[in-house]
Amino acid sequence: MVKRARVLIDCKDQKGLVYKISKIFYEYDLNIISNREFVDKEDQYFFMRSVVAGNFEPFDLESALIKELNNSANVKVIPPAKKNIVIMVTKESHALGDLLIRYIDGELEANIVAVISNRKNLKSLVERFDIPFLTISADNLSREEHEELIMHELAKYSFDYIVLAKYMRILTPKFVAAYEGRIINIHHSFLPAFIGANPYKQAYNRGVKIIGATAHFVTNDLDEGPIIAQDVISVNHRYDWRDMQRAGRDVEKIVLSRALKLVLEDRVFVHKNKTVVF
Amino acid sequence: MVKRARVLIDCKDQKGLVYKISKIFYEYDLNIISNREFVDKEDQYFFMRSVVAGNFEPFDLESALIKELNNSANVKVIPPAKKNIVIMVTKESHALGDLLIRYIDGELEANIVAVISNRKNLKSLVERFDIPFLTISADNLSREEHEELIMHELAKYSFDYIVLAKYMRILTPKFVAAYEGRIINIHHSFLPAFIGANPYKQAYNRGVKIIGATAHFVTNDLDEGPIIAQDVISVNHRYDWRDMQRAGRDVEKIVLSRALKLVLEDRVFVHKNKTVVF
Amino acid sequence: MVKRARVLIDCKDQKGLVYKISKIFYEYDLNIISNREFVDKEDQYFFMRSVVAGNFEPFDLESALIKELNNSANVKVIPPAKKNIVIMVTKESHALGDLLIRYIDGELEANIVAVISNRKNLKSLVERFDIPFLTISADNLSREEHEELIMHELAKYSFDYIVLAKYMRILTPKFVAAYEGRIINIHHSFLPAFIGANPYKQAYNRGVKIIGATAHFVTNDLDEGPIIAQDVISVNHRYDWRDMQRAGRDVEKIVLSRALKLVLEDRVFVHKNKTVVF
Amino acid sequence: MVKRARVLIDCKDQKGLVYKISKIFYEYDLNIISNREFVDKEDQYFFMRSVVAGNFEPFDLESALIKELNNSANVKVIPPAKKNIVIMVTKESHALGDLLIRYIDGELEANIVAVISNRKNLKSLVERFDIPFLTISADNLSREEHEELIMHELAKYSFDYIVLAKYMRILTPKFVAAYEGRIINIHHSFLPAFIGANPYKQAYNRGVKIIGATAHFVTNDLDEGPIIAQDVISVNHRYDWRDMQRAGRDVEKIVLSRALKLVLEDRVFVHKNKTVVF
Repeated sequence: MVKRARVLIDCKDQKGLVYKISKIFYEYDLNIISNREFVDKEDQYFFMRSVVAGNFEPFDLESALIKELNNSANVKVIPPAKKNIVIMVTKESHALGDLLIRYIDGELEANIVAVISNRKNLKSLVERFDIPFLTISADNLSREEHEELIMHELAKYSFDYIVLAKYMRILTPKFVAAYEGRIINIHHSFLPAFIGANPYKQAYNRGVKIIGATAHFVTNDLDEGPIIAQDVISVNHRYDWRDMQRAGRDVEKIVLSRALKLVLEDRVFVHKNKTVVF
Repeated sequence: MVKRARVLIDCKDQKGLVYKISKIFYEYDLNIISNREFVDKEDQYFFMRSVVAGNFEPFDLESALIKELNNSANVKVIPPAKKNIVIMVTKESHALGDLLIRYIDGELEANIVAVISNRKNLKSLVERFDIPFLTISADNLSREEHEELIMHELAKYSFDYIVLAKYMRILTPKFVAAYEGRIINIHHSFLPAFIGANPYKQAYNRGVKIIGATAHFVTNDLDEGPIIAQDVISVNHRYDWRDMQRAGRDVEKIVLSRALKLVLEDRVFVHKNKTVVF
Repeated sequence: MVKRARVLIDCKDQKGLVYKISKIFYEYDLNIISNREFVDKEDQYFFMRSVVAGNFEPFDLESALIKELNNSANVKVIPPAKKNIVIMVTKESHALGDLLIRYIDGELEANIVAVISNRKNLKSLVERFDIPFLTISADNLSREEHEELIMHELAKYSFDYIVLAKYMRILTPKFVAAYEGRIINIHHSFLPAFIGANPYKQAYNRGVKIIGATAHFVTNDLDEGPIIAQDVISVNHRYDWRDMQRAGRDVEKIVLSRALKLVLEDRVFVHKNKTVVF
Repeated sequence: MVKRARVLIDCKDQKGLVYKISKIFYEYDLNIISNREFVDKEDQYFFMRSVVAGNFEPFDLESALIKELNNSANVKVIPPAKKNIVIMVTKESHALGDLLIRYIDGELEANIVAVISNRKNLKSLVERFDIPFLTISADNLSREEHEELIMHELAKYSFDYIVLAKYMRILTPKFVAAYEGRIINIHHSFLPAFIGANPYKQAYNRGVKIIGATAHFVTNDLDEGPIIAQDVISVNHRYDWRDMQRAGRDVEKIVLSRALKLVLEDRVFVHKNKTVVF
């Protein structure tokens, strides 16, 4: 029996959905703490996230909802619990550091079970926080061989999400498929502007007046996955690309942390190549 | 019979509200186009705004909802229709002009039935748009006498809201009471900073790095009414107070238009001294 | 003899530039009201914009500066005067309307000498402001023929800049060359994201969380000209592409007006494909 | 002899200042890497910050400039060097943590020589970074006695600035005077809104739609010192005051770090109760 849970439902839209769902909540004598719904008009597709309180067996509630919705809806009833994450980085510390401080603070709704890097310079930082740091060098390895080593290590951990906190290597389809819908990346541009390598150099060369960062789920199309969060800051002609990079780091880390918070709180639905964020 | 309406409900929170409401929607064979709910935890108070589609008599639906909720809820079923507004100004044209362009554009979900000013300099602008412009000078009049004249003119029009688009005179409690909850003001500061006269001079003297504007409902407490929308822009040491004023105008007009749009679309609940904006 | 002027200088960077320039100012007994400099490190190129006050012949000052800088610098001494602009539009009124209100207000540092459109729906709006409105239909005309007609009309006016306030046709290289460096466009996306047609549909399809607008000088590379100003607003999954379009209009008009203000105040240097904005 | 230095000059405005200063730069055969000037029109007061490169004795250059400006200007020639800072905190880790990560990163242009707190919960975090952490409890002490102990410890360190990274106790005039112009605070509101205690509760009660943070120099007037940097984020009716607090932390830490960076790069002049920030 739990006191509180998040209920996530998505299905083809139809009349009476809210009625049917709220009827079950009513029968289970639940308080609706918060409730958000959305219908994608183009697709006639329904999304709902509720937080409910009462005394109930999550599995029972889930089953009742699924049945009431004629076995045609995705339903998840999620009691509150910290999720587990693995962080992958290359050599920059700002996004990782931001997560570490939130973690030690208790602000992050997750346990960081390991940090993996192809470089070793962040090892001492991570170990200061008593978190395992695995250096898996890519030297002299093919991309596939390198990822094989990473996947071998990942297999030792139980985790919900992989967070790429400035991991600067492109992942193969095989890796992406292995953790489908569970890899979150921070891209250092306001996507879809400046896809690919060196976005700050691209931004400098284009003479933009605003730069940004984008947190997204990773799919096989480079920098094309569903966007979770974005933000921007102003720049001007006095910024060379390194200044843009420095300024951009603050946006990157805040956007990644914000996106991760949304994901950890089960606020993000992925539908086709977009997100619904409650 | 209508095809579509907005349904606004607010009442003391209790279990089963969403169930009861959605049951009525279901019985009326309505599609829920959009639906937003909020519970003020502090007050245990419930707010809901739905857009529903079907074939129904608004009054019937309203009655059914009220009955289902035991006559203890505020329920409004509002078929789509342009509302009427009166705009009051003093001498600045930016906020007024922004509304005029949106009006002639068809973008404003309202008819501007009249513009009233204590000055006459904006007369020719307003009349270019074939809208009645009433100059009601305050010269040699007490505040009460002046407002009496305005109220006399207002009595000739049917309108839902009075929009103070930089009307620079303070309204008496009598005037405010006469149009309770129906007066929207744009204040040229990021309230509650810089209440009262000359906020840009105050901002300049304080050396702030950001200035803003606030759209709010007018109550008897000067600049203390429920806030509908706010926005800001950056300034710096190179701005004197007139530069701040000039820069601020763009924020003022956008914030006022945004707030008015929210109100005209029936998205704003006022509860105590705050708003719930869906 | 004038009392005040803007001095614009750009040239290859070298030691002593500020000294030489300020020496001339000193010899002319000028007060420096404001002064901004920038050196593009990559190109070793120097930019300066000063506002000076005193009693002087602009042409004399210009000559003295050119001579002091060994005939190797671009120098302009510009006494304060309203510039003339022609506005080109297609059918949307928001960006045009914003300029009209600023114009009638006296806030725009320019005279609008004419508005040209390939459509006629904005004629009545523009004529309310006593500004000539020329409808030059593109029906049954090649792009070249249509532009020929426009250029024929433009030849009747004296103007400094052409402002494309949502003119929705692509200009030919011939047209662009005829008014080189004098055409300002507002593009309805945060360039370089969503170049080309229907940026709001593109943005909707990509699922971005922020949309924007970009004011830039027009060159022959579509949407690739030097950027003057950009701004953004947040959107979310509830926005369909028309909602994004509506929301984007406020950004478009503000960004265009802001960019135009910068240009009219002679604050913008174009260097290669970028701008220096003082 | 140094290769590069920052030159800071402020004095009563007068004709020829830029000429005289740039003449000295020219005589010293210096390259001006960057140069920013500002004249406060109200006060007729001049500010300038240049970065110059060449081969020179900083003290010589400083003397030459002072002499050229008739001993009536404040002149500082500052060779590049990390400054030393002491951080004071109470119990929250976000602002401190952000500085620690930047420090270990090498991004912070300062050495953190010590962290002082009236509580001990952040001790383990700070010591992970090999920085001395001094717990100086205020229990059973008067404000004066407590500060006496702090000043006693501070006397052991050489430092340029004290950074209050959420130090939640009010400082006495004596303490402020002892480190005049050298104490930087982050206030968790968009000053001057919500001065004093519990700004997030105040913001929640007022129903604002935007919250912010303000970094400022500390003076004896609580929350009234010269503002260095401010920023804001949007909130809505769904935020209770704790949500505002959580959301506000990201703004607080970024604003404090940004302000500190400006100060450490000698970009901030304080004049009366305002700042000029280059």
